[in-house]
Amino acid sequence: MVKPETLHAVLNAKTVSVVGASSNPDKTGYQVLKNILDAGYQGRIYPINLKAESILDINCYPSLLDVPEDLDLVVIVVPAAAVPEVMQQAADKNARGAVIISGGFREIGNVELENEVMGIANAHDIAVIGPNCQGINYTPNKLCACWPLLTKRGGMAVIAQSGTIGATMGGWAEDEEIGFSALLALGNKSGVGEIELLDYFASDEETKVIALNIEGVKDGRAFIKTAKSALSKKPVVVLKPGRTRKGAEAAQSHTKSIAGSDKVFEAVCKQTGLIRAEGICEFYDYSKILSMLDAPLGRRMLVITSSGGSGILAADTAEDLGIELKQLSTDIKDRLKEILPNQCVVSNPLDLTGDATANRYMQALDVAITSEVIDCILVIFGDPVHKASDVVRDISSRTDKPIVVAFLGGGDVEKEEVLLMHQAGIPAFPTPERAVRAIGALLKKKNY
Amino acid sequence: MVKPETLHAVLNAKTVSVVGASSNPDKTGYQVLKNILDAGYQGRIYPINLKAESILDINCYPSLLDVPEDLDLVVIVVPAAAVPEVMQQAADKNARGAVIISGGFREIGNVELENEVMGIANAHDIAVIGPNCQGINYTPNKLCACWPLLTKRGGMAVIAQSGTIGATMGGWAEDEEIGFSALLALGNKSGVGEIELLDYFASDEETKVIALNIEGVKDGRAFIKTAKSALSKKPVVVLKPGRTRKGAEAAQSHTKSIAGSDKVFEAVCKQTGLIRAEGICEFYDYSKILSMLDAPLGRRMLVITSSGGSGILAADTAEDLGIELKQLSTDIKDRLKEILPNQCVVSNPLDLTGDATANRYMQALDVAITSEVIDCILVIFGDPVHKASDVVRDISSRTDKPIVVAFLGGGDVEKEEVLLMHQAGIPAFPTPERAVRAIGALLKKKNY
Repeated sequence: MVKPETLHAVLNAKTVSVVGASSNPDKTGYQVLKNILDAGYQGRIYPINLKAESILDINCYPSLLDVPEDLDLVVIVVPAAAVPEVMQQAADKNARGAVIISGGFREIGNVELENEVMGIANAHDIAVIGPNCQGINYTPNKLCACWPLLTKRGGMAVIAQSGTIGATMGGWAEDEEIGFSALLALGNKSGVGEIELLDYFASDEETKVIALNIEGVKDGRAFIKTAKSALSKKPVVVLKPGRTRKGAEAAQSHTKSIAGSDKVFEAVCKQTGLIRAEGICEFYDYSKILSMLDAPLGRRMLVITSSGGSGILAADTAEDLGIELKQLSTDIKDRLKEILPNQCVVSNPLDLTGDATANRYMQALDVAITSEVIDCILVIFGDPVHKASDVVRDISSRTDKPIVVAFLGGGDVEKEEVLLMHQAGIPAFPTPERAVRAIGALLKKKNY
Repeated sequence: MVKPETLHAVLNAKTVSVVGASSNPDKTGYQVLKNILDAGYQGRIYPINLKAESILDINCYPSLLDVPEDLDLVVIVVPAAAVPEVMQQAADKNARGAVIISGGFREIGNVELENEVMGIANAHDIAVIGPNCQGINYTPNKLCACWPLLTKRGGMAVIAQSGTIGATMGGWAEDEEIGFSALLALGNKSGVGEIELLDYFASDEETKVIALNIEGVKDGRAFIKTAKSALSKKPVVVLKPGRTRKGAEAAQSHTKSIAGSDKVFEAVCKQTGLIRAEGICEFYDYSKILSMLDAPLGRRMLVITSSGGSGILAADTAEDLGIELKQLSTDIKDRLKEILPNQCVVSNPLDLTGDATANRYMQALDVAITSEVIDCILVIFGDPVHKASDVVRDISSRTDKPIVVAFLGGGDVEKEEVLLMHQAGIPAFPTPERAVRAIGALLKKKNY
């Protein structure tokens, strides 16, 4: 078991070496070094390359042993056969961790080579991430030792069996200006696995939610125990492909994972409180909302919309999930009817109709948040509503009820306003269905 | 019933008037006029405004009667009470159609006013779109008489009860460079309804797929008959919110539609071949793939991926939908093993692993398309694969099997390559699940 203090030292590394750094832009050894630089890493960087004097204007060294100081983290991209020697050198430089991006180990049958590498690492308490992985990214340390280049700091820690799924989560979080605290690819997970990482990020103050993508679990009992402990501190969303017979077969080919019975895993989720995502979209949406909002106190939702059709879709999805659309009290309805134009439908969904402005939303929300029969509010902007973000920011600051947004059909105005909402900590989704499903996940959040 | 030749004249209007044009950028009467101009409309435009001499540098007229020629299309954004007079003037100018964006009619109880307007329109064979709608957009005529501004020409005709759902479809199609032939908002559908439009777009050569969003059907028997007839010519995707009790209630508040039993509608879809979308995302994805590809000859899919995890998700979704992942023949497998590096998993999914380049995809696909046990191919790019679009374009040109792409985790490379694929007529989706569900819809397409 890798200790939390070791992981802490690795993620917060002050000195990093890239072994197998390259000046060829097509090579991983170039991309990783470049991403570390471009992400604005503030520590010291030591590229290792037998021949080059410098790469990307950074002084190179022929071997780790030539580096003039000890190293916190060694990132390894050399061919598999050379990794044991590099690991020995890393030990000699008192490295705390090694990210082995190189493939060619257990995943293609080279079990002995992997064992040799792990033997050296374990003897020297070096935390190994990988081998055969896409690297790590820890935004509080501006350490992007992976690809693609992603830098936006946020509250989501993504632990991903699949480098692609991790990169997808990070990429969407970056595009949407939600950000993430960490992205970690597990690869062959011969050193650090989901158990240590769950445990670590449960206590990491930068992290509000853990997004865990696994294909199988090595030690079921330990997993349940760690998941329970983590879930006592913060929400954990899990994406576990291999639900079906064909999917499970593919998982076994991929990482030699035994997917196990999906029914058993589903029961584990229920028992522990793990929030299961159906696919990549939900994995992202659930992690996003859970990183931004506290759970509502109950299942009663008010829908306010400028789009009648979108309100109906929200109502359909809510009913699927057992989220209630209660009618507002007569008193509240009367107050709404007084201030709203007569084409508005004062009901739940509350339809402000297609010519609704930010001002009309504000007036309606001002009244609606005083209702005692609602626990959360879904605000649907179904048109290019200018200053929509001002409204939800203001309302959010004046109520404890979570405010969630769906924004669609709004062209360029939508694109701008959604980013402003995210910057203000209010999650916005591109369809009412996705917003309501995210609220369904938020309802599974405990009070921490 | 509005005749097809009337609809043809409206969509291909050579002269358009905007009654209620405004110089105030916050007004619909400004936005619609501006969008008609900005979309590059080639016909003659006549803004009507009592006071202004010109708006947006276009000469204004105080009334329709002052326009110096007959009009094909009149777009109306004045208050409801003024619409009967405008409709009479439109009749005097021999208008073929009127798009009534103005609200304030049947939807708020003003049934008589709406009947008065329709009485004039029907007496003069004027095709009315609306009232209370978001307008129309027909890209072959560069006629964007609605909002937001959307101009990209493509094969999807969107007929939308909800202006927002229509605008969302159009917006996504524009962003993804898929485009659309038409966007039509139904509004109160007192004139033109889904029956006429289904019938019209079934024969419109610009349209490859009809995307129909309805909340209820007025005449069930006529709908089934028209749907069957349309489906004998091209695929029709349908999004009908109001599946649930709460959703149906909301639909009734919205458009006074009787949603009817969802089971009955589901049976109608099965009987007629209507392809039902579960939500807005699927409405778009299904319409997109159906506008671009012909149906595969069978249900056997090969998955080629650089991301093992994504391949498993594709396999899961395929099994959900009864899409088969057959194993390749020994002969094909042997040929693949010869050319691929030994970390690749030669199976179905065929995993080219994370360092796969465009060249490796090309080599693998070259062999794979010769297989006799596959009817379509899902190519998953799970990394920033440069020139990915070159590969799928080349392969698509050499096989009749539909090639569908999922691209994720690819950062900026992904964004560029996806647009290049769309320009080449190859649909790319942001997750494997969405891609496989879209293939599920494609399998419902008939041979036309």
